[in-house]
Formats: sequence, structure tokens, C-alpha cells
Amino acid sequence: MSLSVEIVTIGTEILLGHLVDTNSVHISRVLADHGVDVYQKHSVGDNAARLEALLRGALERAGGVIATGGLGPTVDDLTKPAVAAAVGATLEFHEPSLRAIEARFASLGRTDAIGENNRRQALLPAGAFVLENPHGTAPGFVALRPNGKFVACMPGVPREMKPMLAERLVPWLVERYGLNEAIFTRTLHTVGIAESDVDRRIEDVFSTLENPKIAVLAHEYRVDVKIMAKAASRAAADAAIEPVERELRERIGPGIFGADEQTLEGVIVAALAGNEQTLATAESITGGAIADAIVRVPGASRVFRGGIVAYDNGLKESLLDVNSNLVQQHGAVSEEVASAMARGARRRLGSSFAIASTGIAGPGGATEQKPVGLVYLAVADESDEVHVRRVTFLGSREDVRRRSVVAALNLLWRQVEKKETRPQASTSK
Amino acid sequence: MSLSVEIVTIGTEILLGHLVDTNSVHISRVLADHGVDVYQKHSVGDNAARLEALLRGALERAGGVIATGGLGPTVDDLTKPAVAAAVGATLEFHEPSLRAIEARFASLGRTDAIGENNRRQALLPAGAFVLENPHGTAPGFVALRPNGKFVACMPGVPREMKPMLAERLVPWLVERYGLNEAIFTRTLHTVGIAESDVDRRIEDVFSTLENPKIAVLAHEYRVDVKIMAKAASRAAADAAIEPVERELRERIGPGIFGADEQTLEGVIVAALAGNEQTLATAESITGGAIADAIVRVPGASRVFRGGIVAYDNGLKESLLDVNSNLVQQHGAVSEEVASAMARGARRRLGSSFAIASTGIAGPGGATEQKPVGLVYLAVADESDEVHVRRVTFLGSREDVRRRSVVAALNLLWRQVEKKETRPQASTSK
Repeated sequence: MSLSVEIVTIGTEILLGHLVDTNSVHISRVLADHGVDVYQKHSVGDNAARLEALLRGALERAGGVIATGGLGPTVDDLTKPAVAAAVGATLEFHEPSLRAIEARFASLGRTDAIGENNRRQALLPAGAFVLENPHGTAPGFVALRPNGKFVACMPGVPREMKPMLAERLVPWLVERYGLNEAIFTRTLHTVGIAESDVDRRIEDVFSTLENPKIAVLAHEYRVDVKIMAKAASRAAADAAIEPVERELRERIGPGIFGADEQTLEGVIVAALAGNEQTLATAESITGGAIADAIVRVPGASRVFRGGIVAYDNGLKESLLDVNSNLVQQHGAVSEEVASAMARGARRRLGSSFAIASTGIAGPGGATEQKPVGLVYLAVADESDEVHVRRVTFLGSREDVRRRSVVAALNLLWRQVEKKETRPQASTSK
Repeated sequence: MSLSVEIVTIGTEILLGHLVDTNSVHISRVLADHGVDVYQKHSVGDNAARLEALLRGALERAGGVIATGGLGPTVDDLTKPAVAAAVGATLEFHEPSLRAIEARFASLGRTDAIGENNRRQALLPAGAFVLENPHGTAPGFVALRPNGKFVACMPGVPREMKPMLAERLVPWLVERYGLNEAIFTRTLHTVGIAESDVDRRIEDVFSTLENPKIAVLAHEYRVDVKIMAKAASRAAADAAIEPVERELRERIGPGIFGADEQTLEGVIVAALAGNEQTLATAESITGGAIADAIVRVPGASRVFRGGIVAYDNGLKESLLDVNSNLVQQHGAVSEEVASAMARGARRRLGSSFAIASTGIAGPGGATEQKPVGLVYLAVADESDEVHVRRVTFLGSREDVRRRSVVAALNLLWRQVEKKETRPQASTSK
């Protein structure tokens, strides 16, 4: 049996942007894991008429609604009448809930706190299934329409909502709707390929598949391909995912650096560690950010020796042995200087590989020949051979610098893995 | 004149919980700043029929809809036909947008990339007001109903959406709806003070004020105090904000490093530039991230000479002249080694100040005396005097490293500004 729901978060703070709604993200993931389709999500303020209309519309489209928020002692006189009206029930006093609320206050030594506000929390739509709240006072509940469609209400505080969802609501849903299918995913990470290029390569697979489904996700500086299989178990999902993954890997080729929890820097560190090789950095435009990315990886100390941030040109000479003639003749932002920085870092720091960056991040520093965004990256390998890439990035200073870090890691990864070098989307050399 | 809108975020990823919707939070805040009421927010998948129905409903309730997502060159692009249908317009080919897309690809040297997918991005509802996209290919637009209600569509990538909202859509809304009362804010940034401490100091001001209002906002590693005034002009708002700001500054004291767009690293660079002083870094646990923070500041080259990432202990000796006895006697994570790293960097790189970091980020590397999270930071000043701070941070490897960067910048700032040093919340020395 399948179930579709809509999610409603209640609270004016969400509409004002004072509160980031993480509840609906959590609920979405839990529901997806149980094969429940989420049609839409909504946020509405503490306004009874709008809430009731929204719930009525959602109950037309979907099999049920899961709502959070609006159950505190100050606002629930708005929420509960609206929910009751939307399912066509009256509000009734629920004795066991009142006793649970009283017991909770007693255990906190706060018998004085039981007043009209708290008694109101025990008012529930007639016939509702109660969701006990072991982590707070307000109980949740599932109100039912005569046709079987439901509105489940839970508190907005994540600490109370999450256990109520896992321990009370989900078992109720699984039992009632016989949910025995879930969605399992596998995410392939690419680098150095544009979203439109990934699309073009997999378009025909993408558009025809029903299960597993494929989605292309563009992140800040890289593109993921996600394979989502609906199945009764991880093993069944893997069997469905495996041939699709093989096909996608063939079409996308060497731009895929890893899957799921893997990161580019993590893959580099693992490859170096596997080969008992080490790394050093020589950074100008990226200012330490390549080294920072490598150090982010737990266990980086096995392969990372260290780096030089030679921001000042004099330091490129004194710390990296870059010949001053090179800087004078070609400029600090040049293939020659990038190469010399990589070679110098490798020698000075005694590493197998060294990666160097030099470029113009802006807003100042551009010349007629060298625009803002021009970057040279160089990797010196174990045989002291240097591989250079010239790239021009658009965007702000931070965009140019962040993209330079990703491009540098991409270049380094291809050298460490001895992959065929393929041009980047924005490479002009 | 007043305006009410609903916000719609488009993308199956949001419904699956794979993507946290930060766009609607940003849009809510910007709209609140301009006195626009947000009635409801919705998220819908890549489903044309549901999107069209949702837009029609929203246009019944509110004066307009602001939507993000569903505009990329992906094959599942269903947004534009649905928007056109909801406002009752047809899709037309918009020549200037196609030329802008072509120009963008040409500037990236990617004339090969202009295909049907990219041409589709230049299809817009007839009569739409175009929102140019200087940070990406897909243009945004505002589609209009004959009754004047609108649907504004922007890309889902925050880097493209935010400037489009600020520079294109908001001016259009202000002009069209004569939005003349806005919320003007002033945000004071603090570092090294706990949220509860800030609260305690300003509680009484905080709770009584109506206009301007005050909010204390805890971010990842620092606390802001936001003053929000509703007024008809910036000047009127400033007049209301000024006495409140003065009072808050007096109560919070030297933990405030700046306001509004100012960053801690920016304040440091400006102070050093004003004094014609320079800076170098010597990093271990922070792995280049302090240098990276400094280089993030436009014009950093005026003051930043460079840095050494001495991750390997041998490099602390060879590149920073740390005496090997010190490492053997006190360990690499010690006050003595941190001091020697700062002094070594200052001498080797010839700078006025140098900042050094050494610590145990985890998950490995802890000993009985030295737990994960133990960090020593040191600043060597112009007279080669060294100021050391010992801190123990809780959290993951990345938490410890990020907090170390902020604490290091805080220590550096206080030395550069010659402020009285005040203990940090989590300092145990």
C-alpha cells in the first residue's frame, strides 16, 4: 500500500525568516526512507483561517498531513480548532493527556504551573489517536476524517518532535498503511564537468527510468548524480542501482571521483596513503585553502607534510626558490611561476607531490593581458615533472578563490590517480 | 501601499529532504525588511500540474508569488510552462536573454556548449519583466496576470538568486508597490562572548523596546546583536538606532569587533593597513585556514606577507626554527612550541605580527594530558613579545578547527588593536 502526505509547519517566525525550518527536512527524510511520497510542503503563520484552508486543500490532494508547531500553551488555541474543523471533528477533553501533563509538572516539582493554559493542552479532536510526548508537555495527536485521511500534529521543538515521529507516528503509519518499501540512494560525485555536460551525457537514461530514478544536482562548485531506488531492502535496492550506476559511470567517465560520503580531498588523501606518498602545497591566490581542505580529512597527517603561503612575491623567492627573473619576465601570475612554486615546495618540504596556485582574485590586480579570475595551477609529481593548468573563473573574489581550490584538487587528484587529464569546463588552454 | 506574497520553492530534492531550503529564509528576511507580508511558503516537486495549481491558489490569496528553482538547463525543467499557464500567458522566445546566455558561454570560451538546452532558457512568458542574471546563465523573470498579480521566478542557486533578488526584483517591487516603510537594521558583531553572557548584559533593554527591536542571534562561532528599526528612511532609522547602539556598546564592551558587513578578518586587515604593519601565519591544527581567512579580505596583499603550514613536526623545525628540544620536552601541542612557531614565522617572513596555532583536532592524537580539542594559539608582536592562549574546544574535528580559527583571529585582533585581553568563554587558562 502506498501513502502520500503533505507537510505543514506552523509558526509566524518561519514566515519572517527568523527560524530556519529543519523539521520538515527531517520529516521528509524519514518519510522517504519509508517510501512515503511527499507531494508538497507548506509553512503558515499562527492564523486559524489560513491554516484550516491550507489543511483542507492538502487533504484533497494527499492521503494525510503531517504538521509541526502551534501546540505550545500560547498558540494551540489557534491550531487545534483549525485542525478539528479541517477533519470535521469537535474538540474534547482528553483525560489521560491531562494526567500525563500533570505528572510531568509534578516530576519537575512545578505543581503550581498547572493552570488553564496547560489544561487546554489536553483538548484534542474527538476520536484522535494520541501521540505521547515523553520529552515535553504538549501531546501530539492524529486527527482522522471519516474517509480515513488524517492530520498528524506534533510539537515544533525538534527535541520533542523527532522522538515522537520515530517512536509514535511512524509505527502508526507503518501499521496502518502496511509500508514495506523504502527509498535507497547512491550519489556519484563529479568534478570538472558542467551540469549541462552531465545532462547531455545521461539525458536519455535520465528521462526514461522510473525506478531507480536519477537526478542531477548542481552544488556550488561541483555536480552530483543521484540514483534513487524504491525497494523492500537495501540488497534489493543495490541490485536495481548497480546496472544504472555502471551505465552512468561509463557515460560520465573520469569526472566521477567518488560516491556517497566521499570527498575529493578524502579520495586524494586515501590514494596518497595507499601509495605511501606525501604532499606539500605552495599557495598564493588560494591563500592556504588547499592545505585547509587536505587537513580537513581525518588522518591527513599521514600524507600531508605542510605548505607555504607565498602571498608576497618576495616570499615566492625566499621560501620557494622561485627565480626572481621568472617573476620579472613572466609576472607572478604565469605558468612559469606556478611551475617553479610547485617544484620549490616539493624540494623544500620533501614531498612526493606538490600543488601550487597563483592568480588574480580581484577586485584589483588585473592588467590588460591578465584579467581578474586568471589562475595558474601546477602539480609537481614524483619525477619532478610539472603539470600546469590555466583557468579563467568568473565571479566574486571568493568565487574565484573557491573555484581555484576545487580545480587545484581536481588537477592533483588526476595526477595522484594517474588519470588521463581532461579539460575543465572553463579551461581555455 | 502594502504587498502580500507567498514564496514557492521548486524541486523534488527539497521534498525528499536532500536539500535544506535556505532560499525562502533569505527571501523572507529581505521581504520583511521592506515591510512585505509573507502569507505562506510552499515547496513543490518538479511536477507541472501541481506547480500550476499551487501558483493559482497562491495568486488567489496573495498579491504575488516569489518562486525559486526549476530554471536550470536540466531536462526536468517544467517550471516555465506551469508559470505561464498560471498567469494565462504563452511562452515566447526572448532574444536579448539568448544573446546574454551566448555571451556568457563565449566569455568562458565555451561556444560549443550552446545547444537546445541553453536556448530553452531564453523562453519566457509573454510580457514578462526580465531579471538579468550576471552570475549565471538562466535569467529570472516576473510574469504578470492581467489583474496585475505576479509570479517572480529566480534560479535556485543561492549565489545567483541573492544578487538577482537584491539588484533586480526588490527595486522592481519597491517601485511598483511604493514600498515606503522598511525595516532598517544595524548588526553588532561580537567575538569571544557567550550568548547567555550577551543576553544577561542587555536583557532589560531587550525586553522593553518596541521600535527599534533588538534580537540576539547566535551563529556557529559568534554572537550578533541586531537592532531593527521600522522607518520611512535610512536617516530616520539611524536616528532611532543610534542611542540604542550606544547603550548596547557600553554594556557589551570590548567584545564588539564591528558592525553590519564588517568581518573580524576585515577589521584586522584594516587596522594593520592603517598602522602600516604586516602579518604572517604559522599554522598546524588550522592547516592554512587562518591565512585563508585573511586572504579572503580584498586588499589583503597590502598587509599579508604569507604563511607556513607546518603540519609535520619536522617542518616546524626546518621552516620555523622551532628548537627540536622544545618539541621533545613539551610536545608539539604546547605553549612553548606555539610561541616558538609565532616567533619563527615573524622572523622568517619578516612581518610585524605573526599568529601561530597548534592543537589536537581529533579524532586521533589525544594523550592522557592532552585531550582532543586542546589548542594553543600565539601572537608574536612587533617587539617580539608573545601572547599565548590555551583553549579546549568541544565538538567534531571541523568544529575544533573552525573554532580555533575564530579564537586565533580574536587573539590577533586584540593584539593589533592593543585591546585589553579578556578571557574567552571556553578558556581554561
